[in-house]
Amino acid sequence: MQSYTTHILTQLKNGHLSIEEAEEQLKGFTDYGFAKVDDEREFRQGFPEVIFGAGKTAEQILHIFKHLVYKGNTVLATRVDANSAEEVCRQVEGAVYDSSGRTLLYKPEGYELKTEKKIGVICAGTSDIPVAREAEVTIEAMGHRYVSFYDIGVAGIHRLFAQIEEIRKCDVLIVVAGMEGALPSVVGGLVSAPVIAVPTSIGYGAHLNGITSLLSMLNTCASGVTVVNIDNGFGAGYSASLMLRV
Amino acid sequence: MQSYTTHILTQLKNGHLSIEEAEEQLKGFTDYGFAKVDDEREFRQGFPEVIFGAGKTAEQILHIFKHLVYKGNTVLATRVDANSAEEVCRQVEGAVYDSSGRTLLYKPEGYELKTEKKIGVICAGTSDIPVAREAEVTIEAMGHRYVSFYDIGVAGIHRLFAQIEEIRKCDVLIVVAGMEGALPSVVGGLVSAPVIAVPTSIGYGAHLNGITSLLSMLNTCASGVTVVNIDNGFGAGYSASLMLRV
Amino acid sequence: MQSYTTHILTQLKNGHLSIEEAEEQLKGFTDYGFAKVDDEREFRQGFPEVIFGAGKTAEQILHIFKHLVYKGNTVLATRVDANSAEEVCRQVEGAVYDSSGRTLLYKPEGYELKTEKKIGVICAGTSDIPVAREAEVTIEAMGHRYVSFYDIGVAGIHRLFAQIEEIRKCDVLIVVAGMEGALPSVVGGLVSAPVIAVPTSIGYGAHLNGITSLLSMLNTCASGVTVVNIDNGFGAGYSASLMLRV
Amino acid sequence: MQSYTTHILTQLKNGHLSIEEAEEQLKGFTDYGFAKVDDEREFRQGFPEVIFGAGKTAEQILHIFKHLVYKGNTVLATRVDANSAEEVCRQVEGAVYDSSGRTLLYKPEGYELKTEKKIGVICAGTSDIPVAREAEVTIEAMGHRYVSFYDIGVAGIHRLFAQIEEIRKCDVLIVVAGMEGALPSVVGGLVSAPVIAVPTSIGYGAHLNGITSLLSMLNTCASGVTVVNIDNGFGAGYSASLMLRV
Amino acid sequence: MQSYTTHILTQLKNGHLSIEEAEEQLKGFTDYGFAKVDDEREFRQGFPEVIFGAGKTAEQILHIFKHLVYKGNTVLATRVDANSAEEVCRQVEGAVYDSSGRTLLYKPEGYELKTEKKIGVICAGTSDIPVAREAEVTIEAMGHRYVSFYDIGVAGIHRLFAQIEEIRKCDVLIVVAGMEGALPSVVGGLVSAPVIAVPTSIGYGAHLNGITSLLSMLNTCASGVTVVNIDNGFGAGYSASLMLRV
Amino acid sequence: MQSYTTHILTQLKNGHLSIEEAEEQLKGFTDYGFAKVDDEREFRQGFPEVIFGAGKTAEQILHIFKHLVYKGNTVLATRVDANSAEEVCRQVEGAVYDSSGRTLLYKPEGYELKTEKKIGVICAGTSDIPVAREAEVTIEAMGHRYVSFYDIGVAGIHRLFAQIEEIRKCDVLIVVAGMEGALPSVVGGLVSAPVIAVPTSIGYGAHLNGITSLLSMLNTCASGVTVVNIDNGFGAGYSASLMLRV
Amino acid sequence: MQSYTTHILTQLKNGHLSIEEAEEQLKGFTDYGFAKVDDEREFRQGFPEVIFGAGKTAEQILHIFKHLVYKGNTVLATRVDANSAEEVCRQVEGAVYDSSGRTLLYKPEGYELKTEKKIGVICAGTSDIPVAREAEVTIEAMGHRYVSFYDIGVAGIHRLFAQIEEIRKCDVLIVVAGMEGALPSVVGGLVSAPVIAVPTSIGYGAHLNGITSLLSMLNTCASGVTVVNIDNGFGAGYSASLMLRV
Amino acid sequence: MQSYTTHILTQLKNGHLSIEEAEEQLKGFTDYGFAKVDDEREFRQGFPEVIFGAGKTAEQILHIFKHLVYKGNTVLATRVDANSAEEVCRQVEGAVYDSSGRTLLYKPEGYELKTEKKIGVICAGTSDIPVAREAEVTIEAMGHRYVSFYDIGVAGIHRLFAQIEEIRKCDVLIVVAGMEGALPSVVGGLVSAPVIAVPTSIGYGAHLNGITSLLSMLNTCASGVTVVNIDNGFGAGYSASLMLRV
Repeated sequence: MQSYTTHILTQLKNGHLSIEEAEEQLKGFTDYGFAKVDDEREFRQGFPEVIFGAGKTAEQILHIFKHLVYKGNTVLATRVDANSAEEVCRQVEGAVYDSSGRTLLYKPEGYELKTEKKIGVICAGTSDIPVAREAEVTIEAMGHRYVSFYDIGVAGIHRLFAQIEEIRKCDVLIVVAGMEGALPSVVGGLVSAPVIAVPTSIGYGAHLNGITSLLSMLNTCASGVTVVNIDNGFGAGYSASLMLRV
Repeated sequence: MQSYTTHILTQLKNGHLSIEEAEEQLKGFTDYGFAKVDDEREFRQGFPEVIFGAGKTAEQILHIFKHLVYKGNTVLATRVDANSAEEVCRQVEGAVYDSSGRTLLYKPEGYELKTEKKIGVICAGTSDIPVAREAEVTIEAMGHRYVSFYDIGVAGIHRLFAQIEEIRKCDVLIVVAGMEGALPSVVGGLVSAPVIAVPTSIGYGAHLNGITSLLSMLNTCASGVTVVNIDNGFGAGYSASLMLRV
Repeated sequence: MQSYTTHILTQLKNGHLSIEEAEEQLKGFTDYGFAKVDDEREFRQGFPEVIFGAGKTAEQILHIFKHLVYKGNTVLATRVDANSAEEVCRQVEGAVYDSSGRTLLYKPEGYELKTEKKIGVICAGTSDIPVAREAEVTIEAMGHRYVSFYDIGVAGIHRLFAQIEEIRKCDVLIVVAGMEGALPSVVGGLVSAPVIAVPTSIGYGAHLNGITSLLSMLNTCASGVTVVNIDNGFGAGYSASLMLRV
Repeated sequence: MQSYTTHILTQLKNGHLSIEEAEEQLKGFTDYGFAKVDDEREFRQGFPEVIFGAGKTAEQILHIFKHLVYKGNTVLATRVDANSAEEVCRQVEGAVYDSSGRTLLYKPEGYELKTEKKIGVICAGTSDIPVAREAEVTIEAMGHRYVSFYDIGVAGIHRLFAQIEEIRKCDVLIVVAGMEGALPSVVGGLVSAPVIAVPTSIGYGAHLNGITSLLSMLNTCASGVTVVNIDNGFGAGYSASLMLRV
Repeated sequence: MQSYTTHILTQLKNGHLSIEEAEEQLKGFTDYGFAKVDDEREFRQGFPEVIFGAGKTAEQILHIFKHLVYKGNTVLATRVDANSAEEVCRQVEGAVYDSSGRTLLYKPEGYELKTEKKIGVICAGTSDIPVAREAEVTIEAMGHRYVSFYDIGVAGIHRLFAQIEEIRKCDVLIVVAGMEGALPSVVGGLVSAPVIAVPTSIGYGAHLNGITSLLSMLNTCASGVTVVNIDNGFGAGYSASLMLRV
Repeated sequence: MQSYTTHILTQLKNGHLSIEEAEEQLKGFTDYGFAKVDDEREFRQGFPEVIFGAGKTAEQILHIFKHLVYKGNTVLATRVDANSAEEVCRQVEGAVYDSSGRTLLYKPEGYELKTEKKIGVICAGTSDIPVAREAEVTIEAMGHRYVSFYDIGVAGIHRLFAQIEEIRKCDVLIVVAGMEGALPSVVGGLVSAPVIAVPTSIGYGAHLNGITSLLSMLNTCASGVTVVNIDNGFGAGYSASLMLRV
Repeated sequence: MQSYTTHILTQLKNGHLSIEEAEEQLKGFTDYGFAKVDDEREFRQGFPEVIFGAGKTAEQILHIFKHLVYKGNTVLATRVDANSAEEVCRQVEGAVYDSSGRTLLYKPEGYELKTEKKIGVICAGTSDIPVAREAEVTIEAMGHRYVSFYDIGVAGIHRLFAQIEEIRKCDVLIVVAGMEGALPSVVGGLVSAPVIAVPTSIGYGAHLNGITSLLSMLNTCASGVTVVNIDNGFGAGYSASLMLRV
Repeated sequence: MQSYTTHILTQLKNGHLSIEEAEEQLKGFTDYGFAKVDDEREFRQGFPEVIFGAGKTAEQILHIFKHLVYKGNTVLATRVDANSAEEVCRQVEGAVYDSSGRTLLYKPEGYELKTEKKIGVICAGTSDIPVAREAEVTIEAMGHRYVSFYDIGVAGIHRLFAQIEEIRKCDVLIVVAGMEGALPSVVGGLVSAPVIAVPTSIGYGAHLNGITSLLSMLNTCASGVTVVNIDNGFGAGYSASLMLRV
């Protein structure tokens, strides 16, 4: 991976930037007052800054989204409500909203898949699908492939075994589950790929808005399972994509 | 079931009790100052009072144990440490100590199994065996049969499937598990018998001394699963025995 | 109980299924994309899949409901809001909505009670009735009988004693309570039937949305009490019904 | 109640104190460096400072104990271990140690009961007795009478009803219970006296060292029940004594 | 206090009840299906059943309210929203709604204060007033007097000392506080009357909806303080009233 | 700082107050029934009472606001919603509303900065700005200067290092962060000024509404960091201002 | 990876197993009563069963250890105390105990590294080293290489930057931290490799035995970070090794 | 404050360091394998690294202690047990152990107080003294003065008022309290200096090992109070010292 500094200096040398512009950009971020967009992120981490939409106005999301599009990036925004999404889609051609996962994705010209490897995205129940979708769009944004396995929770475990051979063909697995969160343990015991467990807030009463699923997954008896925050489909998709690149 | 009052009056009529004795016994308990032993329990609930040994001295346990033996009961004491157990066994012929489950059991003459039905006692890992043993001795005390299935947790789920037919032959199932507590959900989805889930304190860190297993089991996606307190093998064995009598 | 595989092969042999249909159905589930309905459930567990309505759209509920009706099952959906219920009732003749317990029940032709045994459904206060109703409709769905004992909490314990003889005639008991959740302990000490305790979210402040009732019930000093999740009337009714079949 | 200032000035006037001594004592406390003993407490609150022994050395306890004896007070120390108690008893004639409740009590000459009223001290189980004892010795220290009702928990509720008439004769009730802590609710619904509920740390697993009993009591459905900290027999005895004086 | 049974039999003897009516009423409650109103409550506990309005419909509240009015009682309902209150006030002449404390109170003819004693109701801040009001109306319902001391929290402790002499004249004290809940400790150290501490849900962040105030009060270093549930003004007023009767 | 008593007596001597007025004011607070405004606060603590707007009506806020303006104070109200703010601004000339921080500030004639020192206000993300704003307006109210450093969280730590020299010039630092709350630890290890950490409720799932950020900050491995309640920008600004005065 | 079944059948064909032996081994586990050792594990997951030593006797550990050595495996046991380790090392030549990480490792003849890739193991403080060691020995057991970076926590962040280039050369990173657990967020923002965060129980007070570090890591603002249980060095080393194989 | 780099270069120029030594030291830390001692700390933060003794061996503590002494620093180690302290004191002349606060302090030649300002260290009860001592020794190490006010908790609030004038003379206040943690709120409302609140683990039952005191202090109604971790006397002393330097 080329360093950000090399990238800017090259642009200066090539005449794409003035000295003033290069100087400004060497800081590595653009300051919009309400936000300092991290321009160096892709060079440091392999993927540009992702917009976390929760708690941002449509205007703020749009502002950052356009900045990133202008820089030529693949742009991903998560936790975007329908109204903000509509605003962005109206102004940015090519932006696509997934209403289940509540993601906005813009793929620049020249976007292509980076490997033949693939990530399996498993979810336990119908209600867990939105979290799975957030993971899947993230994987797509990062240039990777995924295969979906929905509604195969342990209450009817034959649904899992019916697809276990397909699951075993995946290079990394994401397992999304609410309730008692048992599925990552079962899957983790059946495969040799790394498993990322995503607890969801689907449940009631002593489920404690996902804390139960989270605790369950952290205490898995299966080896090879790591965990992300409750409902954090994005984090799972992002980490899984990094694993494909190892 | 004959009522306790009828029982006492019958004994009076038969001359086994004096009027004073009958009057005293109609209260339904014997008052030893530090404890009021519930003599009416068997007539009300189908099994005599069980001694919860934790926090009682060897002397107190022995005192109540002898009272119950004298009344002709099957006597069960749980959570009894080795020292107290030794004391009781020295003084009460026929008392048997299980050092794994830490139970003391005395079976009176004429003890016999009450049905042909049987309870399956499953545990997820080697470390869960003591809790399973507490359940098993309780089942034996109450006059029922059990079959053990040890160390068949979900990390190697073929160990469960290797025995699923035997498990399905049981009339009630007790499933003991620590860690993420996933096993009751998996078993619960495979059988038609009622399942009693027993969380154990086996785990570390975010296991919170069993709270994680407990929460997991309470949020099971399988139908037909009820739960008892952490490490409560006794409670599971007792309830399972009641279910055989329904 | 006949196995699911035998059932399908018999239908093939009888000409009710083509070879292709049988092959498809031997998988044991029907895949609708957003859900994999567990067709094998009744043969494995003794009752068909129950629809958990929370977090599902009216359309999704209706879709699965019709599938199950078409298969000839008794169909139960829980946690169904009034709008979804109206939609289902309009399209499925015979579906009945209970607005207190928020359940939808469809009983196929030939539905009948399976035993003479009965389940007592006790609740502590007026506000606990909806949870009791969910349990009762579940019991009805599974082909069993129940008797209701409402508003007999421990603040006026003579209301319980006024009915204790009727309660003792029940084969299994469900005790629903919020607040301090003391009722299952008191009932558990008076009967010989297994007791299923259902904590409810009725309370305020340090009640923690039902956690207090739940903890209280898990720590009961009475023997023979098992517990389900907060507000889980369905789970209690389901397990109680299984116990009748032991 | 005479004010502390009046008391000191009267002693000055009577010649029992010099001007310097009176000046020093008008501060209302004696400063020993490691502790400032509250000499004004009895005049402000009706009972002298009580020594909380936990975390204090035998030497510190002895020091304060002697100070209070010297001032002519009834002296109470709680949570005193056997070694410290032995030290105090050796040096202070008349000091009495209760090894169950772990209290030290010294009654000065002229100690007498203040009213005919009495406090009922109820406990649910044998293991709760030490907490009940702490309450009882506190009541005695404050010059009041108590009646004990031990081991009458709800698992055998006939033990409670056998004594309910005696209980109803008490002017204030203290109810001590561990496990699910149901007893204060049941008692609270049967009497017209104020009830002070004392949760204990007796239990295991989801009992959380007494938190369950505490939460249960705070959420009681009975009216007229107030609560103190876990294992706080002293606080209950103290408040109950104040209530007798209203 | 006359017993309920004596009361009913006397009415029968006097011809106010038929034999059938007396028989029915000897059960001690009236069964309305959704509720079993505890008619015996006043005779057992000294005050009739109080209606907990939360979670009840206007219709249900009205139904029970009228029943209690008809029986000649002082009637109190708590946690009643404005709509339900309007409905009751329209139909029951003499019912008065307190919109701050959200209580409904009906005082029958002949209502009068029972003692000259009085209860001090202290609150720490302006936002705690509604909880104080619930306590005050409860005290009034039970026939006792109260004095209000509002907004005298520890941030400006001179406001407390400005009124301490008035506070010391009260026979029982209720101290209502949110935030860190320090006020009951400070008051408890200054008076000789029993103190009932009421934590409120006023606060934010780590206040945890009142848990912080509750924990603080349970751990008070002052003697003579007991605690009720968060926002439970009713419970405090009720217990304080009982204390006046000791 | 002149004492409040001296202040009042001086006004009396100067003829600005009558004897009656002086007598009333020597109490140190003004009693409006629903609130006792602490007039002595500025003399005791160096800044007048601040209005906590949450849970107060527009009318109540306005009432106290006017009282404080009338007394000639700088007046600050926090957690004021837009409607209440509009009401106050309409009636009090010079009152200014900050819609981000939700503060109302009125600066009297003669307001001026008290020192050349300055407070750095750092926040980790865009969504933390409102809390930072509450701190900044508080600092302004107390007569001090601040410098803002927004959106420089650890995910792009070069944004922090780009400004570290400016940050090191501040005399006190406030660091506002949600999510994992790591920023105060990093800043704390780089500077010699005292750091006040403010956790925010920005996050989801296992963030527990700010508890995670709070716990993180309390456990910082950096020296010189103290912490305030979740979202408590006011508290941080207030304490930071006091530190400038040391 | 060859399947376990193929492996057994090949051995049968080759005459290394009798038909009876093959039949027995096709079950996939060896039943020792107290444990069912999962012989199929390596074929299913790529690494043989690892012995979790906590709660097992020296005898049990030794029994399973020998079984795995006999099968020709690399054998790893974690959480082994010094006494058990001594026993195993005496009886199994080649077993090596790491007293810091409390691991036992046996490498069979022919053990060799599987790739040139390497895992960076970072820890924040000296006290976190034992957890880092558990991870490192696990990595070694699985045939991979690691580089250690100890004591580079954020309180002196120049220690991290001094080694960042070496850290960036690693293919996967494990970051171990107690206290506020900030290090994974800082590292996660600086690298493009996947990061596994391991919270430790190092801390006190509000650290809650590691819960604070855990929550902090789950809420990281950096992308590409997944988390394992508190003190779970093994889990991190295992997952990191799997990632190298993707 | 001179920068660390300038310091090293000056020493090089002066001939106190060779080029190799200077190069090594410009890294800013000394690497001992088990620890990287932060040599730059004093230049960056104004005080050298402090040794946190918990979890370190006597040997490790001694090693780092000597390093810091050798560098000419004031050296402070906290949470040092008696055995480790003895070892250090034997080998390092001038090291002084405080057995109450469990601190080791070494003051180099030329140590002197830095200002005339002083810090008040207040504690609520006798058992809180060790935490106060940790704060006091830290203040001394950093070159500042403190005044102690012990055992002046709110249960006898006249003890606080007896010293309030002395307290008001302090420039910064540290308030240490366990139980309900009310003292910082009361003090905070009476003074104009910044207050640092230190919760302690002194209490029982619902005190939750200090969590109650911590929560209470975080929710203080007084302005100007910030909080540190439970029992963190060091942190309070350190921050208070920084405040004196503002």
